[in-house]
Amino acid sequence: MRLPRLPKRGKTGVRVWRVEPGGIAERPDQVATEEPLEIRLIHEGRTRTVAVTMRTPGDDAELALGFLFAEGVIGRREEVCRAGPCVATSVAAAAGCANVVEVELAAGVPEPELAGLDRHFFSTSACGVCGKAGLDALRLRVPEAIPAGPCLPAEIVAALPARLREAQGLFDSTGGLHAAALFDTAGRLLAVREDVGRHNALDKLVGWAFREGRLPLHGHAVLVSGRSSYEILQKCLAAGVPVVCAVSAPSSLAVELAERFGITLVGFLRGDRFNVYSGVERIAGTALARPRSRRERTALPTL
Amino acid sequence: MRLPRLPKRGKTGVRVWRVEPGGIAERPDQVATEEPLEIRLIHEGRTRTVAVTMRTPGDDAELALGFLFAEGVIGRREEVCRAGPCVATSVAAAAGCANVVEVELAAGVPEPELAGLDRHFFSTSACGVCGKAGLDALRLRVPEAIPAGPCLPAEIVAALPARLREAQGLFDSTGGLHAAALFDTAGRLLAVREDVGRHNALDKLVGWAFREGRLPLHGHAVLVSGRSSYEILQKCLAAGVPVVCAVSAPSSLAVELAERFGITLVGFLRGDRFNVYSGVERIAGTALARPRSRRERTALPTL
Repeated sequence: MRLPRLPKRGKTGVRVWRVEPGGIAERPDQVATEEPLEIRLIHEGRTRTVAVTMRTPGDDAELALGFLFAEGVIGRREEVCRAGPCVATSVAAAAGCANVVEVELAAGVPEPELAGLDRHFFSTSACGVCGKAGLDALRLRVPEAIPAGPCLPAEIVAALPARLREAQGLFDSTGGLHAAALFDTAGRLLAVREDVGRHNALDKLVGWAFREGRLPLHGHAVLVSGRSSYEILQKCLAAGVPVVCAVSAPSSLAVELAERFGITLVGFLRGDRFNVYSGVERIAGTALARPRSRRERTALPTL
Repeated sequence: MRLPRLPKRGKTGVRVWRVEPGGIAERPDQVATEEPLEIRLIHEGRTRTVAVTMRTPGDDAELALGFLFAEGVIGRREEVCRAGPCVATSVAAAAGCANVVEVELAAGVPEPELAGLDRHFFSTSACGVCGKAGLDALRLRVPEAIPAGPCLPAEIVAALPARLREAQGLFDSTGGLHAAALFDTAGRLLAVREDVGRHNALDKLVGWAFREGRLPLHGHAVLVSGRSSYEILQKCLAAGVPVVCAVSAPSSLAVELAERFGITLVGFLRGDRFNVYSGVERIAGTALARPRSRRERTALPTL
């Protein structure tokens, strides 16, 4: 059987420090690519930005069409005369238009109602994301730089999911709740919040810290039960969290944001193993043996 | 150790049909509660709705505070003089205000900039979600009713995840990509799309069907790799999909929407087992033995 086509552009190469009981080793890895996409609608010669969403590049025209169909902006194929990359008027602009997709309505189609589009609507700079890529296109709110430290032993990091489950397991019998938990550097669980939405669980946790007068959260670690994305890292950055751990994979933009702002980003935190995607200097590995395999002898981080 | 507090209101009771190789049985179950929350900001006596998000009830004030903090609308605890449920002016209004939270800024705090709040902004009716609950508050786009049928043998439903993995496994080495796949009633994979965002993967799939002139997708089944939420079901409803399957759990609002609009909703589709939350009449169980336990003898669906 011929397999249906899947996008090939969805992966970004990164360096990762794999931490296991037997040692720590740097190695190449791949994460899912996350970049902003600006969706523009053209009607009777007038171009409007209707949404900016964080997505994995590939099938952008289909993403725009499916989004606009679900929103009721378009209904039949005949209403659309073109869906594709931004048609730039200059070579320079064309080079920057990979993250802009345009959907042009056919002549005679009535003006669509755009009020109340219910999708992530990321704040963008005045010129949109055209001509920029990744983080540069997104206005970030950074109240203050995250200071160096604290240092967490790898054993404490590895024990965080069990402590979250201990608290969560009493309540979540649905299998459908995400959790966000706050820990101190000794690995003590300070607060945990749950929600069907990952971002809501983290908002609730940060809102608790806001109420308690604990912000910024320097000297703390946050654990989220799912994946880490741009939005998760942006919220942790705003709250001053130096160590962000996730049970599952990070996106490319999560890694990029963590690197740029000095956040330690841990992923695939399961059992007694995890990956460190940035800020490995905050993971103390004194009890860890260094690997001695020929393949991975080089470029070990100094702990 | 005293465990930190977790919300107690996060679960909703449902009836579920558990399908296993040995039989099918109806039983009570619980799903994570999903309801809209309207976040209002009060400044100098003026009230504005700044966001409507789908969330699990509980810790709503903290959710609002954390959201507004991450967005840079509030910065210090002193800037907020009250955060809590909507203060209704009548008993009738008070009864409907469970899904409205208000954050009131202290006197003298400068007017906050609200442009570009980057969060789900669900379309609401003119009066917002106050006084309504769940689906009634959300404007749904239903192009046409989903007709009865098709009927899928349980064995075909159970085989869908393996077919998705077969296609996806070739490409996803990141562990960070969600997938949405379209199948015909014989279980043949017609298209699959991937993205870091669940909703994007589904938008890409529906956009593909739009381009191919295949909408509405009556006579098809969709499989999503994660959980099913209101947004997933809303998009499938718009595309006319009669059978929606998810590898993980549904939310309460996903179940409610599926029931109301006649969609068959399958969850926890793993191995050769799955749960049916609504529309069980589309699952043909001729090869399944009916359970004969005393506990579960009653109320079996007629297949």
